[in-house]
Amino acid sequence: MNTQQPRVIIIGAGFGGLFAARALANQPVDVLLIDRSNFHTFTPLLYQVATCALDPSEIAYPVRTIFRKDRNIRALLGTVTDIDYTNKRVTVENGRQLLEEPYDYLILATGSVPTYFGQDVFREHALELRTLSDAIALRNHILSLFEQATWIEDDTAREAMTTIVVVGGGPTGLETAGAIYELYNHVLNREYLHRNLQARVVLVEMQPHLLDPYPEKLRQAALEQLRSLGVEVMLGTPVQVVDEHEVELANGTVIPTYTLVWAAGVKGSPLAEMLELPLQRGGRLPIRPTTEVPDRPGIYAVGDMTYLEDESGRPYPMLIPVAQQQGELAAQNILAEIGGREQRPFTYNDRGSMATIGRRRAVAWIYNKIQLRGYIAWLAWLALHLVTLLGFRNRLNVFVNWVWNYFTYDRSVRIILEQGRREAVKSEKSKVK
Amino acid sequence: MNTQQPRVIIIGAGFGGLFAARALANQPVDVLLIDRSNFHTFTPLLYQVATCALDPSEIAYPVRTIFRKDRNIRALLGTVTDIDYTNKRVTVENGRQLLEEPYDYLILATGSVPTYFGQDVFREHALELRTLSDAIALRNHILSLFEQATWIEDDTAREAMTTIVVVGGGPTGLETAGAIYELYNHVLNREYLHRNLQARVVLVEMQPHLLDPYPEKLRQAALEQLRSLGVEVMLGTPVQVVDEHEVELANGTVIPTYTLVWAAGVKGSPLAEMLELPLQRGGRLPIRPTTEVPDRPGIYAVGDMTYLEDESGRPYPMLIPVAQQQGELAAQNILAEIGGREQRPFTYNDRGSMATIGRRRAVAWIYNKIQLRGYIAWLAWLALHLVTLLGFRNRLNVFVNWVWNYFTYDRSVRIILEQGRREAVKSEKSKVK
Repeated sequence: MNTQQPRVIIIGAGFGGLFAARALANQPVDVLLIDRSNFHTFTPLLYQVATCALDPSEIAYPVRTIFRKDRNIRALLGTVTDIDYTNKRVTVENGRQLLEEPYDYLILATGSVPTYFGQDVFREHALELRTLSDAIALRNHILSLFEQATWIEDDTAREAMTTIVVVGGGPTGLETAGAIYELYNHVLNREYLHRNLQARVVLVEMQPHLLDPYPEKLRQAALEQLRSLGVEVMLGTPVQVVDEHEVELANGTVIPTYTLVWAAGVKGSPLAEMLELPLQRGGRLPIRPTTEVPDRPGIYAVGDMTYLEDESGRPYPMLIPVAQQQGELAAQNILAEIGGREQRPFTYNDRGSMATIGRRRAVAWIYNKIQLRGYIAWLAWLALHLVTLLGFRNRLNVFVNWVWNYFTYDRSVRIILEQGRREAVKSEKSKVK
Repeated sequence: MNTQQPRVIIIGAGFGGLFAARALANQPVDVLLIDRSNFHTFTPLLYQVATCALDPSEIAYPVRTIFRKDRNIRALLGTVTDIDYTNKRVTVENGRQLLEEPYDYLILATGSVPTYFGQDVFREHALELRTLSDAIALRNHILSLFEQATWIEDDTAREAMTTIVVVGGGPTGLETAGAIYELYNHVLNREYLHRNLQARVVLVEMQPHLLDPYPEKLRQAALEQLRSLGVEVMLGTPVQVVDEHEVELANGTVIPTYTLVWAAGVKGSPLAEMLELPLQRGGRLPIRPTTEVPDRPGIYAVGDMTYLEDESGRPYPMLIPVAQQQGELAAQNILAEIGGREQRPFTYNDRGSMATIGRRRAVAWIYNKIQLRGYIAWLAWLALHLVTLLGFRNRLNVFVNWVWNYFTYDRSVRIILEQGRREAVKSEKSKVK
């Protein structure tokens, strides 16, 4: 290793961090990529892991494998516990030891976390869908309840067990609601022969419409497609009370359920607080158009955790393409700074957005011009995700699984995987500390 | 459901229980198959999940899917807490409720659990490889230690982190030691570029030879193949002391390690104790040649948990084919009893056994006559396991993975999957109770 080279630390191996690291591969810098997981997660397909369509490893790709050939990139599995921006070093908890890692440039890319909009008490009974562990926990939860529902004699309890409430009318909420509905009513109930189980899936959205940023016609199309699938959609009413057995909405509706999936919104990663700067709403860290953090020399930040306004004064959305493009730009601007060249400001190349609602149903808004819905939108969604998935083997397996699922209505990955004895022992120990 | 039909309860969806249920499919009985998991595990390939070669779901097949078309077979996910053999009913804990399930015939098929031969204190620091959760815990453990080892400055600690001790010279021990060695030294260390990490894998066996039931020539071949791969083999010395940082053998050797895999032996499932009968050595339940349990009318038992001697007075081994054949026989003998036909005694159709030791290395003892070793034995092993794996999709994916791994030395399933927040919360709660 050439110790004369400037050292860039990237925190977070999500889309922002990954694209930053890629842009720095084989450049005259030493890169250290830190993440709490040893893999990058293809988050747009988390709901497919949660609903038994894909294996966890099919959407998780080891960071070390991605950068296997890039000798200037090192990976560090650990949790950042402190950023000393004065002396330019970060503290990382790595298993049994604390490492102090110095940097010349730092890129923050730790994304976002779910927000309960001040109602943090909801979280105790909510399931989330932000990490691979979340997805497996949701899968275990749904399958376990279904197994119980087949045997319980009490009709009221059984109905609550087969009712799922999804909160949030964005793409994640729509995709999750649609996929859970299909899992229950097209796959699982084919095998519960001795009692007719029909699941109820309710999508709750505070606003009077779904897919807030989309044009009205696509919002309507999404609503119609969800309803035609069988999902109940309740618009214009926030959640009021959440407990273990029911959810109460602001309009007084009470839904008996053991399953609340929270996909209502996200806020910036709390790591931003380590910079001791005032944050924007949603806990987002203000950055300059170059992705530099003001008043913190050498620190850049990208993606969901940041706040940057476009020419019209609206903040860029918390979307994967923004994170990817900002990650790349941060890397290029660091190289420009090192090389004494001029830095570029961020311009967003918006290729549009899409959301899928079960088999053959989707909406797509391409380049924010072309509006697609239904089967053609679903095919566009499928093609895009296959192309985007990292790693040849993953792509092949995902494809095999999708084709198989499509023709057979099968969901093979239906295993309830409880935590092992050893891990239970470990987590017990870590509590003692 | 025809309530006039005799009701058969099968406890355990391992190889014994599965083959019993299959033999009862579409017969004039109602079958209830109870297991603590919602899936059957193809246990011979657990070590491949533990060493990142296969995904958990590739060796786990949902019980309901297996019997989807058999309307006389119901599945119940739950833990048996009591067998009332006088009134012929079993108590099952199924989520929030306790079910009392009556039977006319009962087949016990709950297999075996690891034994520490009286040294249960070893278990606190040991990893096992009996369940899918065990395999994932071992995978997490190995990968986490490797990530730490790349960063730790202390040479002694680093060597301990990359040392794995496998106890037990049976097929599981050999397969696990070989696969871990290859994972470390052919896959992982290709990516830890900044420090040369070489793992040490030590196989410890109490007896003076490996593969106790095999002929001497194959034992020798296995030993040579393991050593040629790079595994250290220590024969004729039992483990004396196990603590978090080291293992001490009876001959005084001290091996600093954080990883002890216990594959030294198994004993009969403790469920047998519910019948309140004297057990044979190894906690095995004595059965009649018909697989009936003496003095417990209507109860049959099969597989690892049972004790039955062959004509020469030796107990049948605790092997999958014995469990499969006994499971089938128990089902047939129950149907014979119902139909007033004569029951048949057990005769073991022994097709031999094999053990694999990494890529291209194996020993096979076919029909206890033909002895194969090396590449040809490995091919035989590969073919057998592909044919035996349940489910078309699984077979296809496993095959894709194997071919891919073979040509690329890749291990794609390298994700450290910590338990999710929700599950941590749950296990916390269950402790409170």
